[in-house]
Amino acid sequence: MNFELNKSIEILERTPKVYSALFYNANYDWDKINEGIGTWSAYNIVGHLIHGEKTDWIPRAEIILGDNQNKTFEPYDRFAQEQLYSSRTMDELLSEFETLRNQNIKKLHSWNLSESDLNKEGIHPDLGSVTLRQLISTWTIHDIAHLNQISRVIVKHYAEDIGPWKKYTTLLNS
Amino acid sequence: MNFELNKSIEILERTPKVYSALFYNANYDWDKINEGIGTWSAYNIVGHLIHGEKTDWIPRAEIILGDNQNKTFEPYDRFAQEQLYSSRTMDELLSEFETLRNQNIKKLHSWNLSESDLNKEGIHPDLGSVTLRQLISTWTIHDIAHLNQISRVIVKHYAEDIGPWKKYTTLLNS
Repeated sequence: MNFELNKSIEILERTPKVYSALFYNANYDWDKINEGIGTWSAYNIVGHLIHGEKTDWIPRAEIILGDNQNKTFEPYDRFAQEQLYSSRTMDELLSEFETLRNQNIKKLHSWNLSESDLNKEGIHPDLGSVTLRQLISTWTIHDIAHLNQISRVIVKHYAEDIGPWKKYTTLLNS
Repeated sequence: MNFELNKSIEILERTPKVYSALFYNANYDWDKINEGIGTWSAYNIVGHLIHGEKTDWIPRAEIILGDNQNKTFEPYDRFAQEQLYSSRTMDELLSEFETLRNQNIKKLHSWNLSESDLNKEGIHPDLGSVTLRQLISTWTIHDIAHLNQISRVIVKHYAEDIGPWKKYTTLLNS
């Protein structure tokens, strides 16, 4: 196990800035490219991350830590961004993502979580029993997993343009 | 084909800032984690990117555009960073990467490349004939392909910590 709360918090603070370094105030439109119908662009992903800040990570942590005996999480809507954020600009989404993240990190800090807090459990509607430690670990890598997806989309966008260099590009040969 | 020179230049300008947003002045040590013996950490990758700025992309473009009849590139040493940069701090590497990139982008701008320039060819020691367009396309996605690698390494670092959420994490199930 590699979880360390202070390292998780630091990466959670940094990832909105990583997304902005790629896309904020950009002239190119690579936030809109995807891997085909039904797949997500960076624009879709940032909407999804905003929805997670509002309805997933911290609200679920509050269920785990709260006094209510019912520890079952609300199901998370992975497609909410299609309705909620489709008319916003990418810059608006990036700003909102960073603002919400900063608020949520402040809340997380204010809890001063102990080891026994991190062992507390909630009930995921599909996965069953999960600990607060597992929830925060998943939150930590969730932005990064989507950064993996965004980087793959960009590499694929130039798959033909690189010509014979395709041979060296593992992502395009798997 | 999707290549557009102005979009390539913009992403080449941005990626050093993406790497710094992840690792510059960081308290965590996730720039040193990798996928096991013989695999690369973010620290190794930034050394490799510096070496590319110095010896690969722009020097090869100069061979393609120059007057010398010999258009064969020098082989690129993918492992040079192991000797050259292993004693530097990550912050030093990140700063040098950004400085070199900015210098190289200035040079690229100064060439005012035409379509016929982009069609000019060089000889890659392994791949054979390649165009300047293919070289710049490959340069464009090279940082991003390594960002894909770095994000994969970070996700894997918490593979056990996320517990049952592994089910939803495509990267950990492939």
